[in-house]
Amino acid sequence: MAGHVLALAGGVGGAKLALGLARLLPPSALTIVVNTGDDDEFHGLHVSPDLDTVTYTLAGLANPETGWGRQDETYRVLEALGELGAETWFQLGDRDLATHIRRSDLLRQGRSLSAVTAELSLRLGVRHAIVPMSDERVRTVLATDAGTMSFQEYFVKQRCEPAVQSLRFEGAETARPSPGFVEAMAKATAVVLCPSNPFLSVAPILSLPGVRERLALGRSPVAVVSPIISGEAVRGPAARLFEQLQGEPASALAVARYYRGFASHFVLDERDAALKGSVEALGYAVTVAQTLMTSDEDKVGLARMVCAALGVNV
Amino acid sequence: MAGHVLALAGGVGGAKLALGLARLLPPSALTIVVNTGDDDEFHGLHVSPDLDTVTYTLAGLANPETGWGRQDETYRVLEALGELGAETWFQLGDRDLATHIRRSDLLRQGRSLSAVTAELSLRLGVRHAIVPMSDERVRTVLATDAGTMSFQEYFVKQRCEPAVQSLRFEGAETARPSPGFVEAMAKATAVVLCPSNPFLSVAPILSLPGVRERLALGRSPVAVVSPIISGEAVRGPAARLFEQLQGEPASALAVARYYRGFASHFVLDERDAALKGSVEALGYAVTVAQTLMTSDEDKVGLARMVCAALGVNV
Repeated sequence: MAGHVLALAGGVGGAKLALGLARLLPPSALTIVVNTGDDDEFHGLHVSPDLDTVTYTLAGLANPETGWGRQDETYRVLEALGELGAETWFQLGDRDLATHIRRSDLLRQGRSLSAVTAELSLRLGVRHAIVPMSDERVRTVLATDAGTMSFQEYFVKQRCEPAVQSLRFEGAETARPSPGFVEAMAKATAVVLCPSNPFLSVAPILSLPGVRERLALGRSPVAVVSPIISGEAVRGPAARLFEQLQGEPASALAVARYYRGFASHFVLDERDAALKGSVEALGYAVTVAQTLMTSDEDKVGLARMVCAALGVNV
Repeated sequence: MAGHVLALAGGVGGAKLALGLARLLPPSALTIVVNTGDDDEFHGLHVSPDLDTVTYTLAGLANPETGWGRQDETYRVLEALGELGAETWFQLGDRDLATHIRRSDLLRQGRSLSAVTAELSLRLGVRHAIVPMSDERVRTVLATDAGTMSFQEYFVKQRCEPAVQSLRFEGAETARPSPGFVEAMAKATAVVLCPSNPFLSVAPILSLPGVRERLALGRSPVAVVSPIISGEAVRGPAARLFEQLQGEPASALAVARYYRGFASHFVLDERDAALKGSVEALGYAVTVAQTLMTSDEDKVGLARMVCAALGVNV
C-alpha cells in the first residue's frame, strides 16, 4: 500500500531508525516527529537536543562518537564562555552553537519552532520532514532523590545518577501538537515508536492533548521498536528508569507491558527472541529482528523489517 | 596633583591611547568612557564593537592585525551560520562570539550594559574601569548617497564607500549618560578625547544630554589628541568625513576647528608641527608629540605627554 509513516523519535536511538526510514521512504511518505521535552536554554540560546540529533543524523553531519552534536567539532566558544564566567557543563560545540544561535534568532523574530526546524534542516540538506512535537514550550522535569531538576541537569550535569521518583512534562497539558504533527496523525497509515527512551523521549510526545487518543483510534497500526535489548538500554538511563518508575527490571517484555493497549506491533531484538510468546500474549504482532544499529545498513535493514511488519510498501 | 582622568574613546585608535593611560595611571585615577553608537545586533546577539576593542586591548587579547576582535581567532561558528542561511558580512570570531553571547544573555537577564561590561572586562583581567557612554540604546545612523544605513552597514558592509550626507545618533536625545560616566564627569580633573573619529566615535558620546555642558564648565582641561596626521586618518573614514560633512580637507587644524570652544588642549603629531601656531590661534594650548602608536611604548609615551600637558601627575 502507498501510505504515510509517522515516526516518533527522541535523540540518538530514534535518530538511527529515522535515518533508516528516510533512506527507505520518499519525503512524501515519512514524517519524523521529535521530542522537545529535553529542550533547554543555555546562555540565552534555545537548544533542542533531540531535533538537532535527528537533523544532524539525517544530514550526515552527526558526531558518531558522542552521539550528539556535529562531527569535526571544536569548542572554542564554550572555552571562552567559561573564561567569561558562564557555566559550561553542557557541552556545546562551535558548529552546533551556530544552530542554536540561528534558531534563537529566528524564534525571537517570531517564527515557530516548526518553521525554524524546517528551515535549518533544509539548509543542511535534509529532504524529509523533521517536526517538533509542539511549537509550544514543554519541559521534562524530574523529581529525584537529589531534588527536582530539568532533563539536561539530570542527563548531562548529574549523569543520570539521581534516582528518579517521578516525571512531569511541564506545559504539556496545554501545548498543542505542532501543525506538522497534527497533519501526520491525520494521514498516517502506520506509526513507529523509534527505539527511544519510553519515559523521557516518547512519553512527552504522547502526553500532548489528543495525541494518545488520535493514534489509538485503531485506524493505523503502531509499532514499538524495543529500546531495551537483553535487559539493557543501548544508551541512556531507560533501564534504570524501568526499575525506578515501574518497579520492575528492564526488559523488552517490560517495554511491551508499558505500551500495551496503545501499540499493536512489537519489534524484538534477536537476542530477546525467547520473549516472543510472552509479548504476543500481551496482544502484539511480534517481529524478531536485529535492532542494534551500528552501520547504516543496520538502520536501513531494521527500517525495512519495521515497514514490512506494518504493511508499508517500500 | 592627584586627580582623575576621564578618557573618551571609540575603537582602535581610542583603545591604543586608553592602553597607554591604563599603563600609566592606577585604576582609581582613570575612567574610560566608550562610544556605543556603533553597537548593533547580529544573529540576535548584542555586539558592542568599541567596548570590546577597548576591553580586548587592555586585556592584552586584541588582534593586532585586524584591529578588532581577539587574537588567535577562528571562524567556525560564522562559517556554520552561513551554511544555515544567516548573513555573515559582519565578521565574528569564535572567541569574540562568546563575549556577545554572554553579554546578550546577561542583558536579557536584566543587567545593565555598564554592569555587564564591568563583569566581562574583570573576567578578562582588566582592572581599569571601562564604561559604556550610556546604558540606553543609541544608534549611529548615516544618511548617504546610497541610502540610510546603520554604522556597521556603512563601515563593514559598504566599506565606508558611500558619501555621507549627515549623521544622527538615534536615541541620543533621551539616553542618559551611564552612572559611571556621570560619576567620572563629576570627579574628572582632566578629560582626554582619544584619537578616535570625531564624527562617529566622539560625537555620539558628546551628544548625550548634558555631557557637552558638564565637560565644558571649564573646571577641567580637555585635551584633544588629533586622529588626523598629515591630513590623513590613521585608520577609518575620518578624513573623508571632514570633506563630506565639514566641506574642508582633513587636517589636524580642521580637527582643532571642530572642537574649538569645547577643548582647551591639543596634541599635534610631530609631522604636523608646522600647524602649531594656527592651532594656538584657535585658543588651544598645544603639545607636539609622536601620536602614531605602533608599539606599547608609543602608547605609554603618548599617554605620558597627554598627562603632562594636562598637569596630571603620573
